[in-house]
Amino acid sequence: MTTENLISEIKRKQSFLCVGLDVELEKIPEFLLKEEDPIFSFNRAIIDATHQYAVAYKPNTAFYEAYGLKGWKSLEKTINYLNVNYPEIFTIADAKRGDIGNTSSRYAKAFFEDLGFDSLTVAPYMGKDSVEPFLAFENKHTILLALTSNEGAFDFQTKKVDGEEIYKQVLKTSKDWKNSENLMYVVGATKAEYFADIRKIIPNNFLLVPGVGAQGGSLQEVCKYGLTEDVGLLVNSSRGIIYASKDADFAEAAAREAENMQLEMKAILDGIH
Amino acid sequence: MTTENLISEIKRKQSFLCVGLDVELEKIPEFLLKEEDPIFSFNRAIIDATHQYAVAYKPNTAFYEAYGLKGWKSLEKTINYLNVNYPEIFTIADAKRGDIGNTSSRYAKAFFEDLGFDSLTVAPYMGKDSVEPFLAFENKHTILLALTSNEGAFDFQTKKVDGEEIYKQVLKTSKDWKNSENLMYVVGATKAEYFADIRKIIPNNFLLVPGVGAQGGSLQEVCKYGLTEDVGLLVNSSRGIIYASKDADFAEAAAREAENMQLEMKAILDGIH
Repeated sequence: MTTENLISEIKRKQSFLCVGLDVELEKIPEFLLKEEDPIFSFNRAIIDATHQYAVAYKPNTAFYEAYGLKGWKSLEKTINYLNVNYPEIFTIADAKRGDIGNTSSRYAKAFFEDLGFDSLTVAPYMGKDSVEPFLAFENKHTILLALTSNEGAFDFQTKKVDGEEIYKQVLKTSKDWKNSENLMYVVGATKAEYFADIRKIIPNNFLLVPGVGAQGGSLQEVCKYGLTEDVGLLVNSSRGIIYASKDADFAEAAAREAENMQLEMKAILDGIH
Repeated sequence: MTTENLISEIKRKQSFLCVGLDVELEKIPEFLLKEEDPIFSFNRAIIDATHQYAVAYKPNTAFYEAYGLKGWKSLEKTINYLNVNYPEIFTIADAKRGDIGNTSSRYAKAFFEDLGFDSLTVAPYMGKDSVEPFLAFENKHTILLALTSNEGAFDFQTKKVDGEEIYKQVLKTSKDWKNSENLMYVVGATKAEYFADIRKIIPNNFLLVPGVGAQGGSLQEVCKYGLTEDVGLLVNSSRGIIYASKDADFAEAAAREAENMQLEMKAILDGIH
């Protein structure tokens, strides 16, 4: 998907909501466990119920790998379902991959070509030649970890190199990489005060923002400093939406939560125009 | 597997060779493509031919994910084959995973419990709470990326924070994490001159060393600065061994290459005693 298509979908829906499909069998309604593929059945119901409020879906691969071959199959079916039924929706494989060049190419092929995701999260630690193989794919997007939403972000990401935090070095350095126009960045909502600085370095790139809600981040704060003319944000919510209810009404409950977020987003977008 | 078991196997075989199982269909002998599962057939032949010279095998997950469900199945069969037939061998899933706490737990479960690997490579960028879930597993080993063997290692890993390279901060900081006795580290052979400094920080931890051979690192140099009383090194070779021949003799050719490395290792171990 092109960035332009993503932006026009955001404007059409007045939403920059990404729904995280981090599915655990212990947390989904019990009656679904009788289905042949409970995880896919759950995802399909969640997607059908929330798609008018969301512009992106983000399965985190860990939750699928945890179920081995079956889990991998559920992931395949989920991305196929999205691509066939909602091709206007942006898809993110939250896999945090990254390896030496020829190996990163294999991951890129797996997620972009074979599975057909629009984007993939990638870890920056191994540098340029570990990321450029992902950037080489046209109309595919590499979402580089910059400042994550967890406690451990302060272990290395905010340490200063020549007076500047490492996550800022990641932003600056990666701007010079080949096909860097295909870069987006992960920036956690729990550190909203950093968004102003970040926008000075990358005024236009899309940011994927986890940590709103359950992890304590504020949507208002993130938008205050992070929004661009083309919105430039994808704000993720996982548990708050998909586990809104464990009963027969789980999909409707998820839709209500997604709609609430979309309305909050619309109000913010209305406010700035 | 306990570290003691790994050490006794190293001493018994007079080898600290790890064979990287980075399998691509384009590179294996053509006649294997007729097999039901060519990748597993290739791995089984390589393992049977080289196991007396190697103490560890390391499939890089990218090469398996690139083949989707089929690839995942080949990986499962490979680790099962190793665990059933050669339980004395140390197994490494080279997956470079790492995510926020509850998500890392899912990866740990997938690789340690379900697949049954002895160890997993993990990226440090997200810090303590992204790594500790892996460390919580008894007799399982977390191999943290410190200084990798690629060019991009100089983009961030060798940048200085308070006068000290980031990779050294990773070594020092991680020593204080819970269950840090389960930590090993990736240190590329292409930077052998760094090993002396590294051993000052972590005198005893095992190091997984890629980059000998194809990538230009020297075994002698690595051993000069990296060896400990308990050896403390696992030196990886992938392409140099598994693709030694593309003909019917591929397994014998791989065995010869593995034996050559084992003999070189034995000579080094003999030299220091």
